[in-house]
Amino acid sequence: MKKPTILVTNDDSIHATGIQVLISIARKLGNVIVMAPEYPMSGKSHSITSNTPLRSTLRKQEEGYVEYTCAGTPVDCVKLAQHLFFKEKGPDLVVSGINHGSNASINIIYSGTMGAALESCLCGHPAIGFSLVDYAADADFSYAEPYVCKIMEDVLQNALPQGICLNVNIPCGEIKGIKVCKQAKAFWHDAYDQRVDPHGCDYFWLTGNFVPENAENGDDISALEQGYVSVVPVQHDLTAYSYLSTFEKRMQDVEKR
Amino acid sequence: MKKPTILVTNDDSIHATGIQVLISIARKLGNVIVMAPEYPMSGKSHSITSNTPLRSTLRKQEEGYVEYTCAGTPVDCVKLAQHLFFKEKGPDLVVSGINHGSNASINIIYSGTMGAALESCLCGHPAIGFSLVDYAADADFSYAEPYVCKIMEDVLQNALPQGICLNVNIPCGEIKGIKVCKQAKAFWHDAYDQRVDPHGCDYFWLTGNFVPENAENGDDISALEQGYVSVVPVQHDLTAYSYLSTFEKRMQDVEKR
Repeated sequence: MKKPTILVTNDDSIHATGIQVLISIARKLGNVIVMAPEYPMSGKSHSITSNTPLRSTLRKQEEGYVEYTCAGTPVDCVKLAQHLFFKEKGPDLVVSGINHGSNASINIIYSGTMGAALESCLCGHPAIGFSLVDYAADADFSYAEPYVCKIMEDVLQNALPQGICLNVNIPCGEIKGIKVCKQAKAFWHDAYDQRVDPHGCDYFWLTGNFVPENAENGDDISALEQGYVSVVPVQHDLTAYSYLSTFEKRMQDVEKR
Repeated sequence: MKKPTILVTNDDSIHATGIQVLISIARKLGNVIVMAPEYPMSGKSHSITSNTPLRSTLRKQEEGYVEYTCAGTPVDCVKLAQHLFFKEKGPDLVVSGINHGSNASINIIYSGTMGAALESCLCGHPAIGFSLVDYAADADFSYAEPYVCKIMEDVLQNALPQGICLNVNIPCGEIKGIKVCKQAKAFWHDAYDQRVDPHGCDYFWLTGNFVPENAENGDDISALEQGYVSVVPVQHDLTAYSYLSTFEKRMQDVEKR
């Protein structure tokens, strides 16, 4: 049977432990093409590079494995890989991560890891973003490995519905199982650490606290807190459907003004 | 009656025509604080700056008006303005734009203009992103003005439900009215213009075509094509709810492996 082709990317850059773990799992399951950011791209969301050109570097080429870096964002990586390798036929699977830190709940909208997964899904490829909910510098990815592997195998075998990708977050330590979840409500309560440079000018470092709102059974934050891997099927439509009719009435009044 | 406070930002930078038009409208309706990117930030989506510090510059200060720039993304602008001006009480309205080009349909996920609106809404502020569907260098924003003004007045008067902001796109030329819409399905068919620099190295310019999928009555692309202003109420939850139960079954099988 022909081996599947797996595209691997992330947002923590090619130098991160998480992508190395993901590459080693992917190589057991198929032929692997890596297109990963050269530099850390955390928090780059779905951003693209259009005002400057992109560069890409071939780092390694072996039987069943090629590794490129791209001096752009995770979404750039997916778009450039699509252009260079998948003009005729897409990859059988795109995996992004394993991110060093949570992309559960509202973190998804800031996440470069999930930006890459969502972009892949827009290109028509089955895609999964993996994140480890552990912020320690020496975070242990080994607990995550069997779950990452099993979920990848499932998607290779059964694909995903058109327009849907998966946001998979993995708790640190012993794992109780997998829960399919909705995205929890939360926001970041931001602050800035305001400093003065040696020339007397102000500058600001972003800091902040994650604030869950009404965590409830069935959402990804609760699943992770209970020691489960959270799997959220994710799509691109941001329409607030429940408010369409309310706004129709309001906008009719606005027109009359 | 106390004048409302309006925060104005965009992604095309402080130097863009669109934000100047938006500022002039906002100044008629209230006291205005501008925090806009110093440099063009198109396609920056919901990206944030966390690995480097931010700088901000006061450019103008008059009765009822202050204008700052920030050397960051549109979302950075909102977060920094929140920190500097709205610790106690938020603005009465945040407006982002008027973007030079469409943010209808799938463009919303790449858009810095809408990144700023969505972030404001996460901070609990009523927010609107405005975009003009005209790519001409000398795009005429005058047709848009009355609609921008009316929609701002409506939101100042009636606010928005918690967690919802508006994605408003305005066609160029004569406008027939306003339609409340859902986000149309579409994707970008990307290509790269591959070139060789004077040192013999490859570089890649992003190009691409917008591909609408099954445009249908009730979506924003159709409304714009028919000459209407499209208003999409927008929220942050990316969960694909219709697939939750399907995935629950699949993941139960995955666990058993």
